Amino acid sequence: MSQENLTVVLHAQGDLRLVRHEHKREVLLKMHSVGICGSDVHYWQHGRIGDFVLKKPMVLGHEASGRVVKVGSAVEHLNVGDRVAIEPGVPRKVDEYVKNGRYNLSPTIFFCATPPDDGNLSQYYKHSANFCYKLPDNVTYEEGALIEPLSVGIHACRRGGVTLGSTVLICGAGPIGLVSLLVAKAMGASKVVITDLFPERLTMAKELGADFQLTVKKGDGAQQLAKSVEDLLGAQPHITIECTGVESCVQTAIYATRSGGVIVLVGHGSEMVTVPLINAAVREVDIRGVFRYSNTWPMAIAMLASGKVNVKPLVTHRFPLKQAIAAFETTRQGLGIKVMLKCDQNDQDP
Amino acid sequence: MSQENLTVVLHAQGDLRLVRHEHKREVLLKMHSVGICGSDVHYWQHGRIGDFVLKKPMVLGHEASGRVVKVGSAVEHLNVGDRVAIEPGVPRKVDEYVKNGRYNLSPTIFFCATPPDDGNLSQYYKHSANFCYKLPDNVTYEEGALIEPLSVGIHACRRGGVTLGSTVLICGAGPIGLVSLLVAKAMGASKVVITDLFPERLTMAKELGADFQLTVKKGDGAQQLAKSVEDLLGAQPHITIECTGVESCVQTAIYATRSGGVIVLVGHGSEMVTVPLINAAVREVDIRGVFRYSNTWPMAIAMLASGKVNVKPLVTHRFPLKQAIAAFETTRQGLGIKVMLKCDQNDQDP
Amino acid sequence: MSQENLTVVLHAQGDLRLVRHEHKREVLLKMHSVGICGSDVHYWQHGRIGDFVLKKPMVLGHEASGRVVKVGSAVEHLNVGDRVAIEPGVPRKVDEYVKNGRYNLSPTIFFCATPPDDGNLSQYYKHSANFCYKLPDNVTYEEGALIEPLSVGIHACRRGGVTLGSTVLICGAGPIGLVSLLVAKAMGASKVVITDLFPERLTMAKELGADFQLTVKKGDGAQQLAKSVEDLLGAQPHITIECTGVESCVQTAIYATRSGGVIVLVGHGSEMVTVPLINAAVREVDIRGVFRYSNTWPMAIAMLASGKVNVKPLVTHRFPLKQAIAAFETTRQGLGIKVMLKCDQNDQDP
Amino acid sequence: MSQENLTVVLHAQGDLRLVRHEHKREVLLKMHSVGICGSDVHYWQHGRIGDFVLKKPMVLGHEASGRVVKVGSAVEHLNVGDRVAIEPGVPRKVDEYVKNGRYNLSPTIFFCATPPDDGNLSQYYKHSANFCYKLPDNVTYEEGALIEPLSVGIHACRRGGVTLGSTVLICGAGPIGLVSLLVAKAMGASKVVITDLFPERLTMAKELGADFQLTVKKGDGAQQLAKSVEDLLGAQPHITIECTGVESCVQTAIYATRSGGVIVLVGHGSEMVTVPLINAAVREVDIRGVFRYSNTWPMAIAMLASGKVNVKPLVTHRFPLKQAIAAFETTRQGLGIKVMLKCDQNDQDP
Repeated sequence: MSQENLTVVLHAQGDLRLVRHEHKREVLLKMHSVGICGSDVHYWQHGRIGDFVLKKPMVLGHEASGRVVKVGSAVEHLNVGDRVAIEPGVPRKVDEYVKNGRYNLSPTIFFCATPPDDGNLSQYYKHSANFCYKLPDNVTYEEGALIEPLSVGIHACRRGGVTLGSTVLICGAGPIGLVSLLVAKAMGASKVVITDLFPERLTMAKELGADFQLTVKKGDGAQQLAKSVEDLLGAQPHITIECTGVESCVQTAIYATRSGGVIVLVGHGSEMVTVPLINAAVREVDIRGVFRYSNTWPMAIAMLASGKVNVKPLVTHRFPLKQAIAAFETTRQGLGIKVMLKCDQNDQDP
Repeated sequence: MSQENLTVVLHAQGDLRLVRHEHKREVLLKMHSVGICGSDVHYWQHGRIGDFVLKKPMVLGHEASGRVVKVGSAVEHLNVGDRVAIEPGVPRKVDEYVKNGRYNLSPTIFFCATPPDDGNLSQYYKHSANFCYKLPDNVTYEEGALIEPLSVGIHACRRGGVTLGSTVLICGAGPIGLVSLLVAKAMGASKVVITDLFPERLTMAKELGADFQLTVKKGDGAQQLAKSVEDLLGAQPHITIECTGVESCVQTAIYATRSGGVIVLVGHGSEMVTVPLINAAVREVDIRGVFRYSNTWPMAIAMLASGKVNVKPLVTHRFPLKQAIAAFETTRQGLGIKVMLKCDQNDQDP
Repeated sequence: MSQENLTVVLHAQGDLRLVRHEHKREVLLKMHSVGICGSDVHYWQHGRIGDFVLKKPMVLGHEASGRVVKVGSAVEHLNVGDRVAIEPGVPRKVDEYVKNGRYNLSPTIFFCATPPDDGNLSQYYKHSANFCYKLPDNVTYEEGALIEPLSVGIHACRRGGVTLGSTVLICGAGPIGLVSLLVAKAMGASKVVITDLFPERLTMAKELGADFQLTVKKGDGAQQLAKSVEDLLGAQPHITIECTGVESCVQTAIYATRSGGVIVLVGHGSEMVTVPLINAAVREVDIRGVFRYSNTWPMAIAMLASGKVNVKPLVTHRFPLKQAIAAFETTRQGLGIKVMLKCDQNDQDP
Repeated sequence: MSQENLTVVLHAQGDLRLVRHEHKREVLLKMHSVGICGSDVHYWQHGRIGDFVLKKPMVLGHEASGRVVKVGSAVEHLNVGDRVAIEPGVPRKVDEYVKNGRYNLSPTIFFCATPPDDGNLSQYYKHSANFCYKLPDNVTYEEGALIEPLSVGIHACRRGGVTLGSTVLICGAGPIGLVSLLVAKAMGASKVVITDLFPERLTMAKELGADFQLTVKKGDGAQQLAKSVEDLLGAQPHITIECTGVESCVQTAIYATRSGGVIVLVGHGSEMVTVPLINAAVREVDIRGVFRYSNTWPMAIAMLASGKVNVKPLVTHRFPLKQAIAAFETTRQGLGIKVMLKCDQNDQDP
C-alpha cells in the first residue's frame, strides 16, 4: 500500500462509513487520538503481515479513543458526549472462543486495520458499543488510546503469571517491551531486567522502572546472555517476556528462564526458528504465545484512573491528522516511542 | 497460662533448648526482634485457641528474626553471622500436603507458639535451617519479623486471586487487614475499601494506601453495608478479604462481593455462623479460607528488598525482652498496631 | 400458577411465538423431547422460586431437544432437518461476564422457563441458533434433552476440580446427584460415595456406578455422617458435591471434606444457614457455588457420542405432550428419576 | 557401560547397599518386579543420556515394586510385609521446588538409575519410606512397578489439562504413548488419535482404547499429517502429547493443535530443533514440557485399585533377574512393550 493510497484513505474518512453489523448496537465516534503501531507502518510499507494481505485500500489505526456523537437504539451504557477508548477487536460470531472468554482467538473476529477490516484513523468512526469503554474524567484521550498497546502488556504478563515477587526478563525495549515493564511492575514484580540493542531505549526503560538494563549486541551468544541475566538478578528469572521475535532472543529466553517458569512469546519473527526446545521441556519452562488480548480494557482503565500505571511518558510525538504521512515516517524511522495522531482539529490536547 | 507462667518461660529461654529434629539441619539463632500477635496474647490470657489447648508452659512468639550463631553440619545455605527471618511452621512429615506444596495443611506440622510447640520469643532459638531465610542488607530485622504477618496477607491475597485492576474490600483494619491492604495494592489492586469499628485504625489504613475507609457500627445491617461498599467503588468488589471473624462481617462479605468473585476468610470467629450461603452459591462467589501460609518468605523478602512494600509504619511500640509483660499488655489493650520485643540487649535497633 | 394456567399455556404453544431478538440469528424448532425438572414443578405449584416470581402465564420446560424446521438468514452452522439440543440460557448483553466466558452469571441472560422468559415445552419453539447444538446420529433426542441436567453435573464437577483419582462425596441421589455421579466417574474419580434418605434412589446410584451408598436419616449428626464417609473411603473425600440444599447436609459436607479440598454447593435451600464455616476455612476447604453452567454442551455431546457417559437409564417415564399434567404429577410425586414429555406426536421414540 | 559391568552390578546387589540418608526414615525392600525402560537400555549401551554421564558402574532400574523386610525407626506408615510401589525420585534438599510441590524439578533430587544414583534392579534395595507406597491387595506387584511409566502419562495429561470431552493427539505409540492414552481416556478424553511408524504398535493402541490410529511414514509432511488428524477428529485436537522427540513430530504437533490448546513435550530429541514456533504463539497454543512427574503415585494406585485403568496388557515379556541380559536385549530390539524382570526367585507371579 503506497503513501498515495494512505492519503486517499485518510481523506475518505471524512465521510461516515457504512456500519459493520447492526446500526442499533453501534456508536458513532468523533475520533480524538490514534497511536501509530509498528503493524500500521508495516501494512503501509509492505501491504501485508504474514498471511494478512491487503487487497484493497484499508484505513489504518487501532490504538484509538474518541467522543460519542451518536448512539444506536439498543445501546444502553453510553451516551452522546462520553469519552471512550476503543477495543479494536469485535467478535463476529458466537463461537467456542467467544463463549469461553478467549474471544481474541475467534477466527472471524473483526479487527481494526487488519485486512480486510478498516481501522479508525479517521475523523469519524463507527464501532460496536460493547467494545467502547467510557473513560473516567481523570484519564485523557491519549491514555485511552494507549490502552491498546498496554493491553498487549497486560495480556502478556497475565499469560506469564506475573505476580508479587516475580522476577522478569523482558527482551526488547520497544513500545511493547515498555508497556510489559509497566504492567509487570504494577502486578508486583520485584525485579525486571530489560534488554535491547539500543542504549537510548534502555534509558527510557530505566526511567519507567526497569531494575536492570542489559545492552545486547548482534552475535552475542544466547547462553552467555542468559548467564548475564542470572548474574544481574542473582537467580534466573521466573518469567521471560520475549518482545523481539528474533531467533537468538527466543534462544536466550529458553536458556535464561528458571525451571518451572514461563516464557511469553509476544514478538513475531520468522515462521521457522531453531531453538533448544528440549532445554525448556525438561525444566518444565512453559512457552506461551499471545494473540492480541481479551478482557483487558476494564482493568486498564482501572489502573490508569487509580494512577497505578503511568503511560503518559510513552507519547513522544504528536501530529495533526493532516500530517499523517509525517507521523508515519517518524514511526518508520524508529524515532521516539509512540507517535499520536490528533484527529480532532478543535482539540489537540492529550 | 498466667502472667507468672509467662515470666517463667521467658526466663527459661536464656538457656539453649533441646533441638526438635536432627541437630545437623538446624541453626542456632541469637534472636533480635519478635512481634506480638493477637494469638500470643490469647494463649497468654486464655491458655487456648479453639482445639489448641496449653497443657504445660509454652514459649510464645512466632513473628521473628535473628542472627545465625551456629550451623548444623548439613546446612549449606546459611553461615554464622547471617541475618535471617524465621518461617515458624516446619513440616514434620513428608505427607501428601508437603509433597504437593501446601505444607501449611500438614496436620503434624511444627509451629512456633502453637501448643505444644514452643515459640521463639527468647534470647536464643534453634530452628530448621530450611525455614530460615537470609535477609538482604537493606531489609531490617524488624521487617524480617514482620514477614510473618505479611505472609498472612500474601497468602490471603493470593488465595483471593488479587491481580491488576482488582477491586478489594477488606473487613477489619487490624494488623492483618493492614498487611492485606499493603499486599493487595502491591499486587495491582486498583481500589481498596477497608472497614473497621475504630476511626483511628482507618486513619492508619488511609496512610498505608487504602482508597476508601468505611466506619462501621455494631448493629449495622449487612446488606446496607454491602450497598455502601458498592457505592464507594461504583461497583461490587471482585474480592473480599474478611479479617474479623465476626458473623455480621461474613454476611456483609457475601452480600458485597461481585458475582464470580472470591471471599477469603482470614478472621476466625465462632464455630457456627449463620450466613446467606446460597446468596454466594448462586452467584458463584467462592469462599476460601486461609490457614497460615506457605511459600511466602522468598516473595516477601523480594518485595521488601525492592521497596515495593513498606511495612515499617506498622511497628508502633518497642520493648526490650525484659519488659515482655508490658509489651503484652500494650497489645492486649489494643494500643497501636504492632509491638516489637527486642531480644538482643546489645542491639535494639529496628 | 394453577394447573388450568398450565393447560392454557401448553395449548398456546401450538402457535408460533414471536421471536425474542433478531429473527435472522434464530432457528425454529419442531420440539421432540423435553424433560421435567424440579424447578418446573415448583413454578407450577408455587408460582415462584426465590426472587423469581411468575406475574403472567409462562411456558415451562428447559431440558429439551428438537429438529430444525426453519433457519434465520444469518445462521451458518445449522440446516433444516438438523437434530439439535438446546442450551436454554442465551445472554442478552455483551457484558463483563459474557466477555470473560462466564455468561451464566450475566444478570440479563434469557433463560427458558425462568420468569418472565418462556420455556420450550411446546410443539414449536424459536431459539438463538448459537445456543442450539447439532446432535450426532448416534445421540438420541432424549440424550440431547438430558444434556441440560448433565450440564449441571459437568459444571459442578468442573468447579470442584474432579480429576484422575479424586474421591468424591455426593450428597443427594436425585437427578442432579446422579448426573454428578456419572460425570465424576467419567472425569476419573476413583471412588464416589453417595448419600440419600431413600434406599431406592441409592440402588439406582449403585447401578450408575457409585462405589458406596450411605442411607441417611433425618436427625443424623453431621459429624457422625462425615465420619461414616471417611470410614467408607478410608480417607476424607477430596471433593464434596452437595445437591440437597439442606442445612445439615451442608454441615456434613464441611466436616467430611479433606483439608485443601472443595465443596460444591449445587442444591438450594434456605436463604440463611447455620454452618461451621470456620472449620472449612482453617482447613482451606473451598466452598464454591454453581449457577447453572456455561460451555458444557460441546463436551457433553462429545461424551455422549463417544459412549463415555450413559444417561439413558435416567429416563424412567415418558408421556405425550397432551398428557403434560400427568407427567408433571409424576415428577411432583417423586416417582422415578426423569420424566420425558414427547412433543412430536409423529415421533415418540427416545 | 558394558554387559560385563551390568552383570557385575547385578551380582553386587545381592549384598545390602549402604543407605543414602538416615537409616531411620528408610525401608529395606525385597524387590519383586522391575520394568525395563528405554533409558535403562540407553545407559547400558551408551553410558550416558545427554548431560548425565556414567563415571562408574551403576545399578539400573527405576520401575519397581517390592516387599518391606525392614523398617527404619522413624517410619510410621509402613510395616514389614507390606507390598509397595517405589517412586524413584527422592528430593535431597528442601528447596523452593520441594516447598511448592514441584519436587521433580529440584536440581539435587536423588533418582534411581540416573547417574550417579544407583537404581533398584536388585534383590534387595533400600529407599526413603516416604516414597514407598503401600499397594492394596487387588493391585499386583507388576502393576505397582508400572506406576512409574504410568506416572509419566499422568503428569503429561495433567500438564496438558486433559478433561471431560478433550480430544487428544498422541504422537508415538511406544510405552509412554500408550500410558498417556490410558490416562487420557481415564480423565475423560472423548477421542484420542495416536500415531506411529509401526502398525503393530498402533494395533496395541487400538486394543487399549485409541479411537483412531494413524500410521506415519518418514518424510510425511507435518502440515499434511496435521490435516489428517483434523480430518479424523472432525476438528483439531485440544491437546497434543508428543512422545517421540522427533523434530517433524514436534512440527506436526504445532500445526495440528487447536488454537488455545496445549502441546505437551514428553519425548526427548535433539538439543536444537527447527519448528514453526510463531504458529503456536499467535494461536496461543501452549508448549509445556514434562520432567518425570510429581504427586502421581497415590492417584495411580487409586486408579489401579478401582479398575479404572488397566495396565496389565502392557507387560509382554518376563525374565528372572538372572536372565537380565536377555531381558535387556529384548527391550533393545524393541520387541513387545514392557519387559519385566522378576527379582524374587521364590515369587515370579505378576
